[in-house]
Amino acid sequence: MISLEQAQAMIMAEVRVAAETETLPLLQAQGRILAEPVRADFDVPPQDCSAMDGFAVLAGDIEQANPECPVSLRLVGEVAAGGRSEEKLWEAEAIQVMTGAPLPEGAQVVVPVEDSSLDGDRLSIRRSLPAGTNIRRRGEDIRRGQTVLEKGARLGPVQIGLLASLGRDRVRVSRRPQVAILATGDELLEPGSPHRPGRIYSSNHYALAAQVRRAGGEPLLLGIAPTSGIS
Amino acid sequence: MISLEQAQAMIMAEVRVAAETETLPLLQAQGRILAEPVRADFDVPPQDCSAMDGFAVLAGDIEQANPECPVSLRLVGEVAAGGRSEEKLWEAEAIQVMTGAPLPEGAQVVVPVEDSSLDGDRLSIRRSLPAGTNIRRRGEDIRRGQTVLEKGARLGPVQIGLLASLGRDRVRVSRRPQVAILATGDELLEPGSPHRPGRIYSSNHYALAAQVRRAGGEPLLLGIAPTSGIS
Repeated sequence: MISLEQAQAMIMAEVRVAAETETLPLLQAQGRILAEPVRADFDVPPQDCSAMDGFAVLAGDIEQANPECPVSLRLVGEVAAGGRSEEKLWEAEAIQVMTGAPLPEGAQVVVPVEDSSLDGDRLSIRRSLPAGTNIRRRGEDIRRGQTVLEKGARLGPVQIGLLASLGRDRVRVSRRPQVAILATGDELLEPGSPHRPGRIYSSNHYALAAQVRRAGGEPLLLGIAPTSGIS
Repeated sequence: MISLEQAQAMIMAEVRVAAETETLPLLQAQGRILAEPVRADFDVPPQDCSAMDGFAVLAGDIEQANPECPVSLRLVGEVAAGGRSEEKLWEAEAIQVMTGAPLPEGAQVVVPVEDSSLDGDRLSIRRSLPAGTNIRRRGEDIRRGQTVLEKGARLGPVQIGLLASLGRDRVRVSRRPQVAILATGDELLEPGSPHRPGRIYSSNHYALAAQVRRAGGEPLLLGIAPTSGIS
């Protein structure tokens, strides 16, 4: 008798990875297998940017700030998310930044809006924060040229989000393997046909087809073959 | 500030189970939610049947059988899977049965083909087995009238196989909930559009759409709304 492990090894020895590929819109590629490695064409984030809605300042300017004795700075500009930072930040100045906004030149720390109050162009800061706080560095998530996904990766929600962040809206994936399923047995009835005494409905081919689909394959139901000529 | 748990409770308080239903072919219903309980219209198996390819005999006839001293019986018939058993089994007789074949009247045990040898109509049995061995009883898996799946069950491969075994080839399920996804932010670019400095590709809406689909929903991508008028 062939053991389970032997049978599995015999089957796997004949299995070939599907060579055919197809290019699909990103969302339709869910659950599919990547047919080529994906590299980043640019850094993510593309430049140093703010991780919070707040104010970009110099670290030295707020070193002494605390709730009892806030530091006062002059607001000199604003950078929106998706905007561009033209100004350079100088001592005793602050520039308002939105989450995701490019950091102004010279800025060392972003003070969250919750730790400040604004009155006209006078900004009070109630808290000291070390340099680098609330700043996302250029290339912090992904570096240009980095291989982000290897060939053979399965595309779940995380991988699809990652591909989108690289600007991809289409992706090359392996074709689904087709798996033909043939039920055999004179006792078997096709579900949906009338019940007949002594017969049972064929259910394994449906359960197998559902498992093939869940595993990423394309089931091909070939129906029920009678065995009366054989047995 | 609203805690995560409070926010979840507020959202869940507004969530209604989709009332609309649709009837789908069985395999297309994979991953969907059953909209009505399913009861069995008949017993599964529909009658006592053989669990093995072998020989139906009386338990008393093989009580003394062993490899050194086999018991000899007379083969008087055969029942195929899906066939019907017309004969009654008497003492010192055997009827050949296929896996899934209805059990002949009077049969108490099925001796696997591996534990016997056949020469013309003379059957030697080398092994004693207690009554009931290798017999699947009528209704052993499912009893007629039994609720097999409750309303609200998610249909995976196991449930789809179960429905097929009850003869169902269509099933009534809840409609997929539609989930609209709107990305917001002036810094966002649609994947597939050219890269622009200071901008990032919108990726969360793709990752969310993939998660919605994996959870059984139907994502509706509404695109990217600019926030410059708001912030």
